[in-house]
Amino acid sequence: MKTDSGTVDLGRFDFASGDEIENLEVAYETYGEFDGDNAVLICHALTGSQNVAGYGSETTGQARAWWNDIVGPGKAIDTNDYYVVCANVPGSCYGTTGPASEDPEGEVYGTDFPPVTVADWTRSQRLLLDELGVGRLHAVVGGSVGGMNALDWAKRYPDDARYVVSVAAAARLDAQCLALDAIARRAITTDPHWNGGEYYDRDEAPTDGLALARQIGHVMYLSKASMEGKFGRRAAGRDARRDSFPSDPAAAFFPYRDVESYLDYQAEKFVDRFDANSYLYLTRAMDDYDLAEGYEDDAQAVAAFEGEALLLSFTGDWHFTTEQSETLAAAFREAGAPVAHHVIESDHGHDAFLVEPEKVGPPLRDFLDSGVEGRAVHDTDADADSGPGGDFAPVHASLFSQ
Amino acid sequence: MKTDSGTVDLGRFDFASGDEIENLEVAYETYGEFDGDNAVLICHALTGSQNVAGYGSETTGQARAWWNDIVGPGKAIDTNDYYVVCANVPGSCYGTTGPASEDPEGEVYGTDFPPVTVADWTRSQRLLLDELGVGRLHAVVGGSVGGMNALDWAKRYPDDARYVVSVAAAARLDAQCLALDAIARRAITTDPHWNGGEYYDRDEAPTDGLALARQIGHVMYLSKASMEGKFGRRAAGRDARRDSFPSDPAAAFFPYRDVESYLDYQAEKFVDRFDANSYLYLTRAMDDYDLAEGYEDDAQAVAAFEGEALLLSFTGDWHFTTEQSETLAAAFREAGAPVAHHVIESDHGHDAFLVEPEKVGPPLRDFLDSGVEGRAVHDTDADADSGPGGDFAPVHASLFSQ
Repeated sequence: MKTDSGTVDLGRFDFASGDEIENLEVAYETYGEFDGDNAVLICHALTGSQNVAGYGSETTGQARAWWNDIVGPGKAIDTNDYYVVCANVPGSCYGTTGPASEDPEGEVYGTDFPPVTVADWTRSQRLLLDELGVGRLHAVVGGSVGGMNALDWAKRYPDDARYVVSVAAAARLDAQCLALDAIARRAITTDPHWNGGEYYDRDEAPTDGLALARQIGHVMYLSKASMEGKFGRRAAGRDARRDSFPSDPAAAFFPYRDVESYLDYQAEKFVDRFDANSYLYLTRAMDDYDLAEGYEDDAQAVAAFEGEALLLSFTGDWHFTTEQSETLAAAFREAGAPVAHHVIESDHGHDAFLVEPEKVGPPLRDFLDSGVEGRAVHDTDADADSGPGGDFAPVHASLFSQ
Repeated sequence: MKTDSGTVDLGRFDFASGDEIENLEVAYETYGEFDGDNAVLICHALTGSQNVAGYGSETTGQARAWWNDIVGPGKAIDTNDYYVVCANVPGSCYGTTGPASEDPEGEVYGTDFPPVTVADWTRSQRLLLDELGVGRLHAVVGGSVGGMNALDWAKRYPDDARYVVSVAAAARLDAQCLALDAIARRAITTDPHWNGGEYYDRDEAPTDGLALARQIGHVMYLSKASMEGKFGRRAAGRDARRDSFPSDPAAAFFPYRDVESYLDYQAEKFVDRFDANSYLYLTRAMDDYDLAEGYEDDAQAVAAFEGEALLLSFTGDWHFTTEQSETLAAAFREAGAPVAHHVIESDHGHDAFLVEPEKVGPPLRDFLDSGVEGRAVHDTDADADSGPGGDFAPVHASLFSQ
């Protein structure tokens, strides 16, 4: 498979906030060969990277090859057929300009970096594709906040993509997720090592705060059922270290639990690969995103969209619920756009879009091939018509009727 | 109404951990008159106090008169009929000995205070009641971790209470709640002002960490639906202050949301009334509690219980779910104890036990009067028999079938 990775300097970039920077560099990767009509843009999730599959540049941890099960030769997004492009979003820390990057004077931006929105991500991707010679896309596909990014394409460039796929996403975050994201940011900014965002030339970064923020996020990505099944109340093995965070003497009387050990381990890995200011910037972009912004409602926002849309949601996802996807599907239907809302039964929570490729792959593959008529693509509307014998167990009905 | 409040010195107290202190003082309040057979012990929730109704000693904020809608003359727990006793638990900070108290040498205990468990709470209450001349209780009633405390009475003193009422509780916490509590504790212990728990003689207490811990807890007490209804994505009014937590310049571009303003305000109030070390100690006691501990299972743990049990649960509660209460009800049924699991339809999340007195009051009142045969007392088992026309909408069925 032909792959390419690099960084493109897009020059001066005007952010939606009204601020600008002199040079926006965008780090990207491509997989497969462009035939003029087969480009698929993939939008990464909050802490993801351009390294969607394990062939391109070196990135570490969970940002590396994050959708390797879905993207590659012979896989659901088949790089033998499609020219896959993935770019790191502005504000992130995997090569695209963000708070940890240097400004033209060689000073780290830090919190002088302009506020970033999903709209900025979308426009940076459009500019990158222009540089790569890609006009109309075959598809835009994204998961989680990357799914919001994909929806933003349908709104902002309604003629530019034949297919839009939004996986485990929504038109906007609800109050509960806004609250948890806000708490996570406070964990970072109250870490004294954050130091108002100026920590790049210091010995210590705000790793405790970033670790806490990640742990809050992690709980949001798992379902109650999956956590109970995976960890229950078990104590961690005696080899488990308990030194990630300070503790007090009384803690020693109680078990260090599997679930703590897991979260501590994951947080330790995370702080090595992600920048605390980027976490502030990107969660704010996610919180701020509202598909209806600038329009009367979601249906108006996608009224000009010329393509077809696939919404994949997961029954165990409480970060972006099946109910939210159903509301979004109704907006596409109202706008007259062909849409399928494909509900996947899963206990894996929000993480399902990463860890259940065998359920995500078939509808994705068939949608990219045949749109909403794709064989493995189900739709809640059609399923509802099929009556009680259809795909919809009562658990779905109750989710929708809450 | 006759009320009494004070502190009893129980002398040397041996904790379940094996540690002891020379003097355990227990702060308590009583409402109504004792007739030898009408004592109702009320167990407070995590950050509650002995001030269950607004008549006794002065406590502040949400710890004051926390169940005033339920307890009082003519109320569901009618102090004209019952002699109500409520005591602050060991490890807390409302007058009962805890980390913020002084040891016999006049030094603040801090983290030298012994680890505390729910079993210690139960035993301290038994000892207090002995001091007050109360033998067998008419009832033990508790909400949230106070509901665990009430269950512990059924297990530890199976002959000592005619009725046990556990509201919005469970036999044990699940992995998701354990995780969030663990993260909350890390927020406290990573606050440099925590200083290993030694902050009592310093200028600054770990208020940032305690505020974060409280905010995480607060999200756990509300339901997704109630947060969405109460706050949505609205921006806070322009008078809302934004100075509780440090922030960065880019934040100013984005709205300060209602939900943030609410959580910040609540956290500010909380840190004025609660001790950070107590929060560590009491959440650990909650996390550690397992009704089945020392027994084969929950049914064995309550096998010797001679009374009747009422379990109240709320459909929108994800801290302690209706499903967990149903599991607990099954254990009582297996043990042969008369039990009613009364499910209350509510969107208010875990908070419902405090904010829906009109739904909690009637079954509670009638249970205290007539046990499981009480008129307003429903039971899932009986309701299930009544078929689809009964109290059970599909949403309950799906909760149980998850």
